[in-house]
Amino acid sequence: MLKATVYVTIKQSVLDPQGVAVQGALHSMGFGEVDKVRVGKYLEFELGTADRAEAEQRVKSMCEKLLANTVIEDYRYELV
Amino acid sequence: MLKATVYVTIKQSVLDPQGVAVQGALHSMGFGEVDKVRVGKYLEFELGTADRAEAEQRVKSMCEKLLANTVIEDYRYELV
Repeated sequence: MLKATVYVTIKQSVLDPQGVAVQGALHSMGFGEVDKVRVGKYLEFELGTADRAEAEQRVKSMCEKLLANTVIEDYRYELV
Repeated sequence: MLKATVYVTIKQSVLDPQGVAVQGALHSMGFGEVDKVRVGKYLEFELGTADRAEAEQRVKSMCEKLLANTVIEDYRYELV
């Protein structure tokens, strides 16, 4: 059994409105030292396989097809 | 200048409807080996300070006050 962790982030060149909103909120709460806030997604799941090479290929396929919108988002994953 | 990474996840004892939805979608797309999907948030930002101890305390305060809902969510952070 492998555990996968997937991180999906908006590409650097794409505006991140959620990050802008969070930064505005932090500034108005007195955390003015915060800059360049980016908000992404974080997914954890278990895979019913112990074959690492197969799992890598399956997780990559999941990211490309569903978990990330590769036009505007980057993804990376870890398997443990 | 320090860079902070914050991970916000729904507590294990709390139902994660977004995770359930993602798991259902993955299953219907042929990824039936996926189980226990949990979806969280991932934030990156820069801090205009080089004082590590102060930064830790400030990031913790941001998490408690805005970034995480500590009733239903856990958070952890890294400073680099």
